[in-house]
Amino acid sequence: MTQLSSNVSNEKITIAVLGGTGAEGSGLALRWARAGHRVILGSRSPDRAVARVAELNAALGREAIEWASNREAAIAADTVVLTVPYTAQTATVEEVRDCLDGKILIDATVPLMPPKVNRVQLPAAGSAVAAIQDLLGDGVRVVSAFQNVSAHHLKDLEHELDCDVLVCGNDVEARTRVIGLIKDLGLRGIHAGPICNSAAAEALTSILISINMAYKIPGAGLRITGLPE
Amino acid sequence: MTQLSSNVSNEKITIAVLGGTGAEGSGLALRWARAGHRVILGSRSPDRAVARVAELNAALGREAIEWASNREAAIAADTVVLTVPYTAQTATVEEVRDCLDGKILIDATVPLMPPKVNRVQLPAAGSAVAAIQDLLGDGVRVVSAFQNVSAHHLKDLEHELDCDVLVCGNDVEARTRVIGLIKDLGLRGIHAGPICNSAAAEALTSILISINMAYKIPGAGLRITGLPE
Repeated sequence: MTQLSSNVSNEKITIAVLGGTGAEGSGLALRWARAGHRVILGSRSPDRAVARVAELNAALGREAIEWASNREAAIAADTVVLTVPYTAQTATVEEVRDCLDGKILIDATVPLMPPKVNRVQLPAAGSAVAAIQDLLGDGVRVVSAFQNVSAHHLKDLEHELDCDVLVCGNDVEARTRVIGLIKDLGLRGIHAGPICNSAAAEALTSILISINMAYKIPGAGLRITGLPE
Repeated sequence: MTQLSSNVSNEKITIAVLGGTGAEGSGLALRWARAGHRVILGSRSPDRAVARVAELNAALGREAIEWASNREAAIAADTVVLTVPYTAQTATVEEVRDCLDGKILIDATVPLMPPKVNRVQLPAAGSAVAAIQDLLGDGVRVVSAFQNVSAHHLKDLEHELDCDVLVCGNDVEARTRVIGLIKDLGLRGIHAGPICNSAAAEALTSILISINMAYKIPGAGLRITGLPE
């Protein structure tokens, strides 16, 4: 982590995107690679990973994105990003747990419960992401982000993203670093309080899905108002 | 309710604002009275109500706002609005319960737990407003709204409100009527799904408070993006 000590958004780092073959993870990988970061997709399926990496590198026009197993990706990375379905969240974290010490884990998990994904159904303990911070303890700084960003829009490099990213975490410095990485994606990250506040971002996803259904639009987002420019 | 059957926002109705002497309720009362609705503040404290009504009518420049007990206000009203602190929510609803049949109850309650109001701490069952719908049963259409609107800004009639209102409720027609009333305040109301989704709006209030603290601003709000004009 030493090389990161003064990094906010200018220094290039290695980012592992676990579940990176999915829509949200692919979009993040594509945009971080475009910004010059080294990006490794973590995947349990070599076939899917090979195909996705080829597709993303073709979109970028260069061989900038690699793939590896979730563990290899997490070991190689400075920062690890989790973009797996809710049902795979805990198992994936357990798989890489001993590779995370001292690192930041950005968790984009939304506890959607199909088929009623347009209804807020939070876990009994509140937030799915806060549960991971509890699981990992203070040695890993968990930061919640990206719950409300449309995967559809992320993957389209030409699309200007009209959505803020609520960033929750108990460590302000970790949140600040993540906000720097979010800037590299072309998005605005906002300090949204401690990790327990991730519950609001997670719940809001079901509201955005409700809005997409009610107004027949592809990807509602949110903007925070009242902030200085 | 017959006279309301085709009303969305043009017809003038009688609105009771329970807890209307508070900051949020006063701001709503002021703006609805300005739009031409008959507004009755419901209050348990005649002294406070007399003073608040005098102040609001002075701001309006006419005697447009009245006050009454919570029960009298609820009986006289077409639509009842609840803007009391979380600790008074259930008791206030119990007080007027038998006056609500067939009416819409707009509940603005946020389950803040002082002193840590910048931390999401939802009730065990999820949403404070959904709990009221459960309590009242299907005879009253509960609609959740206004959790994220700054009371400070509402009371300033000159302030253009840069915040959308997430509107949750199980009855689409009730939500549509409330969206009409929200338009009369100078705000945009948005269909945000069933009453259980109120959990997201309630939780979001603690995030907005966190943002106010982190960025030292008076009233962060939210806008939904991606909607047609």
